[in-house]
Amino acid sequence: MAIYNAPLDDMRFMLNDVFKVEQFWQSNEKLAHVDMDTVNMILEEMAKLSKNVLLPINRVGDEEGATYQADGVVTTPKGFKEAYQQYAESGWIGLGGDPEYGGQGFPKMVTMLTEEMVFTTNQAFALYPNLTVGASLCLLAAGSDEQKQTYLEKMYAGEWSGTMCLTEPHAGTDLGIIKTKAVPNGDGSYAISGTKIFITGGEHDLTENIIHLVLAKTPDAPAGSKGISLFVVPKFIVNDDGSLGERNTLAAGSIEHKMGIKGSATCVMNFDNAKGWMVGAENTGLASMFIMMNYERVTMGLQGLGGTELAYQNAAAYANERGQGRSDTQIQSPEKPADSIIHHADVRRMLLNARANAEASRCFAMYVAKQLDESKFSVDADAAQAAAARVALLTPIAKAFLTDKAFEATVDCQQVFGGHGYIREWGMEQIVRDTRISQIYEGANGIQALDLLGRKIARNNGKYMQNFLAEIRNFVSNMQADHGIKQATLEAADTLETLTNAVLSNIGERKNEINGCAVDYLHACGYLCYAYMFAMMVEAAHDKEGEFYANKLKLANFFVGRILPRIRAHADMVKAGSDPMMDFDLSYFATNIS
Amino acid sequence: MAIYNAPLDDMRFMLNDVFKVEQFWQSNEKLAHVDMDTVNMILEEMAKLSKNVLLPINRVGDEEGATYQADGVVTTPKGFKEAYQQYAESGWIGLGGDPEYGGQGFPKMVTMLTEEMVFTTNQAFALYPNLTVGASLCLLAAGSDEQKQTYLEKMYAGEWSGTMCLTEPHAGTDLGIIKTKAVPNGDGSYAISGTKIFITGGEHDLTENIIHLVLAKTPDAPAGSKGISLFVVPKFIVNDDGSLGERNTLAAGSIEHKMGIKGSATCVMNFDNAKGWMVGAENTGLASMFIMMNYERVTMGLQGLGGTELAYQNAAAYANERGQGRSDTQIQSPEKPADSIIHHADVRRMLLNARANAEASRCFAMYVAKQLDESKFSVDADAAQAAAARVALLTPIAKAFLTDKAFEATVDCQQVFGGHGYIREWGMEQIVRDTRISQIYEGANGIQALDLLGRKIARNNGKYMQNFLAEIRNFVSNMQADHGIKQATLEAADTLETLTNAVLSNIGERKNEINGCAVDYLHACGYLCYAYMFAMMVEAAHDKEGEFYANKLKLANFFVGRILPRIRAHADMVKAGSDPMMDFDLSYFATNIS
Repeated sequence: MAIYNAPLDDMRFMLNDVFKVEQFWQSNEKLAHVDMDTVNMILEEMAKLSKNVLLPINRVGDEEGATYQADGVVTTPKGFKEAYQQYAESGWIGLGGDPEYGGQGFPKMVTMLTEEMVFTTNQAFALYPNLTVGASLCLLAAGSDEQKQTYLEKMYAGEWSGTMCLTEPHAGTDLGIIKTKAVPNGDGSYAISGTKIFITGGEHDLTENIIHLVLAKTPDAPAGSKGISLFVVPKFIVNDDGSLGERNTLAAGSIEHKMGIKGSATCVMNFDNAKGWMVGAENTGLASMFIMMNYERVTMGLQGLGGTELAYQNAAAYANERGQGRSDTQIQSPEKPADSIIHHADVRRMLLNARANAEASRCFAMYVAKQLDESKFSVDADAAQAAAARVALLTPIAKAFLTDKAFEATVDCQQVFGGHGYIREWGMEQIVRDTRISQIYEGANGIQALDLLGRKIARNNGKYMQNFLAEIRNFVSNMQADHGIKQATLEAADTLETLTNAVLSNIGERKNEINGCAVDYLHACGYLCYAYMFAMMVEAAHDKEGEFYANKLKLANFFVGRILPRIRAHADMVKAGSDPMMDFDLSYFATNIS
Repeated sequence: MAIYNAPLDDMRFMLNDVFKVEQFWQSNEKLAHVDMDTVNMILEEMAKLSKNVLLPINRVGDEEGATYQADGVVTTPKGFKEAYQQYAESGWIGLGGDPEYGGQGFPKMVTMLTEEMVFTTNQAFALYPNLTVGASLCLLAAGSDEQKQTYLEKMYAGEWSGTMCLTEPHAGTDLGIIKTKAVPNGDGSYAISGTKIFITGGEHDLTENIIHLVLAKTPDAPAGSKGISLFVVPKFIVNDDGSLGERNTLAAGSIEHKMGIKGSATCVMNFDNAKGWMVGAENTGLASMFIMMNYERVTMGLQGLGGTELAYQNAAAYANERGQGRSDTQIQSPEKPADSIIHHADVRRMLLNARANAEASRCFAMYVAKQLDESKFSVDADAAQAAAARVALLTPIAKAFLTDKAFEATVDCQQVFGGHGYIREWGMEQIVRDTRISQIYEGANGIQALDLLGRKIARNNGKYMQNFLAEIRNFVSNMQADHGIKQATLEAADTLETLTNAVLSNIGERKNEINGCAVDYLHACGYLCYAYMFAMMVEAAHDKEGEFYANKLKLANFFVGRILPRIRAHADMVKAGSDPMMDFDLSYFATNIS
């Protein structure tokens, strides 16, 4: 079975050394109640739960998968129900929830670390509570008092779960063309009809009710994305006293057979005049949904981090055990027929690529979480606004760059196993298949890149990026540590500044330029962000004693020498622009289907 | 169902325009009988067979997989048996075989194109005939006359199949520590005992006999790789009259459950005093096996090319059909709610990355095939030797770079489908899973890189590379075409020369340097090779009329602007060397397994 030990020391390094959270929390009256003793206890509890309860059902979840029985009944794999019950009863789903409705009010900087552990040990399982957290966020932000009263407490308690019903067969990225209709019933409710696909947790056997958040169009809604409203559509209608009433007219029509995350039920949901209630104002549904999406996109980055962490730990263990050939310098285990492959520089290169990406992505997710907390809890309106702008800039990077690098890292770790990585027995191929989805859903990574370069850079003429670059340069200039990461980060910042200016000056003439450059631009940004994170980690570690801290500096060396050089390649590819793609006639891509 | 139309025009472009094969064949008396009319007919026949027979059973092969029944009986998925029979009876397995034993004697430049089509349409199926081709090559090169008489004709006819039995549970990359024993029986035969794993086609229901080529150690063999001998161990002993005799004491113990190529039976083979006969001289088994391996490693590159081609064709078709959003420049399909995504530059970027890699890898495989043919058929000993040296240099690149880029390309094409790429229905996720193995088996890609930098560069102090660079510079300098690929290729050649010298001057002091730099060095070489291939394609196309040729120049533009810049990143990472990995103490990688 796969091994896992939660990287609690690394997590505490983030909290205490890099981000000095107690200072941050105490300087903010809405967070002053959070203390590290409690947080430590929380982390230790989740370390146990994830290792002892979620990891053991990770493989069976994949082998068995969720099952569509008949008549809309969907069952989760063996063990998921018991694990979910334990998970919900321990209060994990409401950890970051609003205390007014029974949540525990912990900041994202804490909940993201627990989410990481859940994603690390069982990506498919993680999605069930995760969607509930997302749906509660959306209801909390956009719902009426009555809606919050009706749903939130039960959702925080995990008695009811939540979904996001956006995609339709013909409408994924382009939600403006959805067809699902919402017709007023005259009593304040709406009759929702339509088919939604790819609905994570649309049906399952874990909770007594499922609360669907559904995007639909009212009869006279304007065309496109400006005519989308959001509805809450429960599987069982909730009576006035909070008990469950009649079964709503909605059902799962089938589930998808997927490459991975097979334990997660991905449903086709049919709504047939199902009763729903509007959330927020008419035609503002997309904005409401994006409250949740932006918060969740950071969490998708954590899925990537989780896959990387599990892949790394298992690959490192294998590399220590597996004997093959001899070390290049001297025989290490003369009593054995071969030395373990951990002595090979190339094996270490693959492992360190994963570990450097894991540590940088954890740090980056923490950094974004801090901005999210600042924007949510700060009493200083300017600070909150600045943090929100930073979140807007970094969210697409947190989603796309983290998951792209994570997929690469899981493939590297699989490679460490040679042929043993390709067979099911060792679990590595499952990690690769599971992690792959994180690059696709919640807005495919190409869409994240368009969001970054189009909305977050071009629309404000690079202002968010200039502010971010100023912060980075300021931090690096004030560093006490003497380490190559300083110069490397400054150079990366210069690269991004030049690149941003070049792109901005180009897009006026070339309408395809944003679309054609976005992905490589995002990757260049991603490497800069990771450089900044390593600079922070080096600064936090350089003056402390012990191997643990010395290794942080060595990992930064590895990043500078063996990962960061890719930033130049991405910058150069951006400079080549969109012409190399758009010069082709459409007919070039025609496929003779016969 | 997946679509496929063999890229016959592109293949003929290779044969006629880029490599001018008729000239090449006619200048060589042993190949003068090959003519393009026959070759065209062969390609057209395989185009039909692969599309109409192999593609339709690709998905069922994955869904059903090979099955271990009981008592060593293994069955292939539905339809494989009939397809194999048709394949064998049409003479495909002996296409490149020696005419003296019933083969058809076609050069690798022809057989590789047919192999490409088989790998494109059904990677799992392709392995059955492919292993037979490899085993026959080995027997032809190292077997006795009697062994050739006994086995080759039946193998070329596909009545018997072949395997390579190298790996053992504890010995994969490091074959020097294998434990399988071969004890002389006194009658010229040996008793072979041991367990081999990962044996492709070790047992199945396609042929009446299976001819295993097994690496084993004789009783007094020297330790390590110098004490390995090769044995032919048939499933059924062949009587003197060629009929099948007694069942040999060997059997499949189980089959592996894998990430992909599920239709291919990957067996654990138990040899229990099985009767075998030595092939070639004692203790030269590894060298004999490598005759086959080197030929086959180019073929593994073709597996990558096949995956890329199928992924590209299906992703391009999907991108033409799928409407989502609007073109950035103008509405393209006003009658529809959305334009097809082929109008988005980023979608084209992903498609063109696949197509550029497919065309460059086909060209590179053809180039290596030409050298293989030259080394095998040339009557000029010097030319043959020079070609063999070039093959030695390029084989690890043909195996590793082609498959690494192919995996990336299949993932890109899967991404074009968004969520639809992750579900089984569209077949894209199977292509990704199937293609992944090509990076692992036949010598994992990291091992290929060590072969390149250690054996093919360092051992002759860069001589092979210098010769190759001279050829490239000579070709580019004499190009008539006026195209950016010229300058780009010259710069890439300079990059490689500088890099090679830097590495060579470093490895004296640092014993881990080859190991730590090999993979990035191989990738830098790979991009240079692709640049050279695009230069050849541009030179062949630039003075010809029509869209087809004009698009070759445009694809080269794409390569120069949007792919080649990565060479610098790999070169820079090589320069960072092995210290960033080796500076860590072993304890850093210890995983607390508890």
